[in-house]
Amino acid sequence: MQTELSTTLGVEHAVFGFTPFPAVAAAITRAGGFGVLGAVRYTAPDELARDLEWMTAHTDGLPYGLDVVMPARKVEGVTEAEVEAMIPDGHRDYVARILAEHDVPPLPEGETSGWRITGWMEEVARSQLDVAFDHPIKLLANALGSPPPDVIARAHDRGIRVAALAGSPRHARHHRDAGIDIVVAQGYEAGGHTGEIATMVLTPEVVAAVDPLPVLAAGGIGTGEQIAAGLALGAQGVWLGSLWLTTEEAELHSRRLTAKLLAAGPGDTVRSRALTGKPARQLRTAWTDAWDAADGPGPLPMPLQGLLVAEATSRIQRHGIDPLLGTPVGQIVGRMNSERSVQAVCDDLTRGFEKAVDRINRIAGRA
Amino acid sequence: MQTELSTTLGVEHAVFGFTPFPAVAAAITRAGGFGVLGAVRYTAPDELARDLEWMTAHTDGLPYGLDVVMPARKVEGVTEAEVEAMIPDGHRDYVARILAEHDVPPLPEGETSGWRITGWMEEVARSQLDVAFDHPIKLLANALGSPPPDVIARAHDRGIRVAALAGSPRHARHHRDAGIDIVVAQGYEAGGHTGEIATMVLTPEVVAAVDPLPVLAAGGIGTGEQIAAGLALGAQGVWLGSLWLTTEEAELHSRRLTAKLLAAGPGDTVRSRALTGKPARQLRTAWTDAWDAADGPGPLPMPLQGLLVAEATSRIQRHGIDPLLGTPVGQIVGRMNSERSVQAVCDDLTRGFEKAVDRINRIAGRA
Repeated sequence: MQTELSTTLGVEHAVFGFTPFPAVAAAITRAGGFGVLGAVRYTAPDELARDLEWMTAHTDGLPYGLDVVMPARKVEGVTEAEVEAMIPDGHRDYVARILAEHDVPPLPEGETSGWRITGWMEEVARSQLDVAFDHPIKLLANALGSPPPDVIARAHDRGIRVAALAGSPRHARHHRDAGIDIVVAQGYEAGGHTGEIATMVLTPEVVAAVDPLPVLAAGGIGTGEQIAAGLALGAQGVWLGSLWLTTEEAELHSRRLTAKLLAAGPGDTVRSRALTGKPARQLRTAWTDAWDAADGPGPLPMPLQGLLVAEATSRIQRHGIDPLLGTPVGQIVGRMNSERSVQAVCDDLTRGFEKAVDRINRIAGRA
Repeated sequence: MQTELSTTLGVEHAVFGFTPFPAVAAAITRAGGFGVLGAVRYTAPDELARDLEWMTAHTDGLPYGLDVVMPARKVEGVTEAEVEAMIPDGHRDYVARILAEHDVPPLPEGETSGWRITGWMEEVARSQLDVAFDHPIKLLANALGSPPPDVIARAHDRGIRVAALAGSPRHARHHRDAGIDIVVAQGYEAGGHTGEIATMVLTPEVVAAVDPLPVLAAGGIGTGEQIAAGLALGAQGVWLGSLWLTTEEAELHSRRLTAKLLAAGPGDTVRSRALTGKPARQLRTAWTDAWDAADGPGPLPMPLQGLLVAEATSRIQRHGIDPLLGTPVGQIVGRMNSERSVQAVCDDLTRGFEKAVDRINRIAGRA
C-alpha cells in the first residue's frame, strides 16, 4: 500500500493511525503504518515528554507523529475560573440532575477530573509543542483549524510535516493557504468532531480543492476494503482513529466501555454537541440523549460545554455507569467486534486491501 | 465494469440509473447501464403505460426497470379528504405565511398540483404494477420497504428481479427475509429518503447482512472513482440517482432549478422532513429552513406533510421562486457542474473507473 506520500514519509503502508495511547501508536508504526499520538489528554508537559521518549524507544527508528488541539478561536487571556463563571446555573443543575438520576457517585477523595479546559488552550498546546519539537516526530497534526504560522514554520524548520483536519473543501483550501502539507478529509461518519459531508463525497472534493497537496481519507474506514475505497477516491493515504479503541494495546478507562464498543452496531453512534459543544460523533448514550433532548437546556458552545461536563464525565467513567458511558467513535464501530492486537488488526487491513484490489480487477476485466 | 449481477442481467456496466424521466432512463440503458424509471410522479396508469411503451421502443431490447413507492405503512381505506382533515390549521397557516413572504402567485387557472398523496398509496402503486407487468421490465424496485409477498411472487413469475432500498443492515435483513433479490444500500449522503449511516460504512454492513444476495451501493456516487469505491466495498453494482438531474435529457420543471443544481456545493443539501415528513436529502432552501426552524411548527409525519405542501411545491416550481426552489438531490451535487448528455456522463463514469483501477493497482504495487 504505497503512495507518493507514504514513500516520502518512509512507511510501508499509507495507513495513518490516530490514538491517545502511546502503546497503540508505537504498535501502528512498528506494523508498517504511521502512528500518531493524540496529545489532548496531556495536561503536564513532562508526561508528554515521558511518553514521546517511550515512543521513540519503541518504534525502531520508524516515523511517528503527534496530534495537538490548537483551537481556531483562542481562549487565552482568561482564567479557567473566569470561563467557569460564564456557565449558567441552569446547565449546572441539569448536569447534577442527570448524575442523580443515574446514581453516579462522586470521585473518590483525592482524585480529580482528568480533562481540563486548559488542554484546549493555545498556551497549553504551545507548551506541548515545545516538548514535541525536542523529539523526533515526523508529523504534526492539528484537529481544530490550521496551526498559527510560527508553529508551521517551526515544524518545517525541523523537517516535520504539518497536517490538519478538514470537514469541507472550504476548510481544506484554508489549510492549503496557511501552508499545511497534508489535509485530512474527515467525513460525517468519523468519530469525534465532524462536518456534514460524508467521506465518499468529501474525499474527492478535498482532493480537487487542494491539488496537488496530499489528502488522507478519514471517516468510515476500518477494513482493507474501506482503505481501497478511500484510495480509489484519490486519497494518498487513510487516517483511522476508532478502529484502535478495541485493540489489546488500548487502555480504555473501563472494561464496560470496551464491552459497549464491541457490542455496538453502526447505528449506535450520534453526532452530538454533548461532549465539547461542537458536533462530535460518539456512542449514543443516555448522556447524549439528555443533551439532545428537546426539553433540555441543550449544550453550551465550545469551550464551555467541555468545562461544564468534565467532572461529570470523569465520574461516569470512574464508576463505569453503563447507560451514560460513552466515547467518541465513528460508524465503523459496528464492525469492531473483537479485541485483537494492533499487529493482527494491521494484518487484516492489508489482507482485506489485497482482496479488494483482486475484486476490483476482476470487475474491470483485468484479472 | 462486470459483476455477477450485471452479467446475469445482461448489461455491460454494473451501473443502475434511477430517474423520473423516460428519456434519461432509456439513454442510461442504451449507454450500457441499467435504466430504472421512477413511477411516483405518475397518477394516471395510461400515462405510465405510454411511457413504458416508449421506453421499450427506445432501449434496443436491452433491459430496463421500474421503481415504485409502496409504503410500509398503508394509507388505504381512507380518502384523501379524510387525510386532509388530519392536518392542523396552524400548519396550513404556516405554509400560507411562507408563500406570502416570498410573493408566490397561485397556480394559473385550470392547473392543478402535479403531486398527489395518491401516488404514495398502495392501491395506486398496484394499478401501476398492473401496467408495468404488461411491459418487459426486468427489475422492479421499491423505495419504501419490501413490497407485499403477492407482488414479489407476480414479479418472480415473470422473471422480474425485485430490489428494495435499505438504510441499515436491519432493513436489509428484513428485505432478504421477504424474498427480495437485490438490496440497494442507500447511504446518508444520498438524495431523497436516507438513514444516518454513510455509504462507506453501510455498503459493507449490508453486504455482510444479506450475503450472498447482491447489493448495490447508493449515495455519494457520481464519478468513476466513486463507482470504484462502491465496488471495492463489496457491492455488485452502483445505484445513481442525482447525477442524471443535470443531463441534457432531464426535463426539470424549471431552468432556475437546473441553474441552482449546477451552482450548488457539497454542503448545500440538507436531510430534512420538509418534503414528505420523512428525512430526505434535498437542496437546502428557504423552504427547508422554514420547516427546520426551531420557532416553526415543524413537519408533519408522512403522508400528511406531503399532502400539506403539495400545492405550495407546485406553485413554487411553476413560478420558479428562486429562494424556495429545491429538489431531492445528494451531496454529489457539488460535482454536477455542467449539462451533458447521458452518454457523455456514462463515458466519463467508465473512464473515471478505469483510471481509479489504474491508480489502485499502482498503490498495490501491481502496475
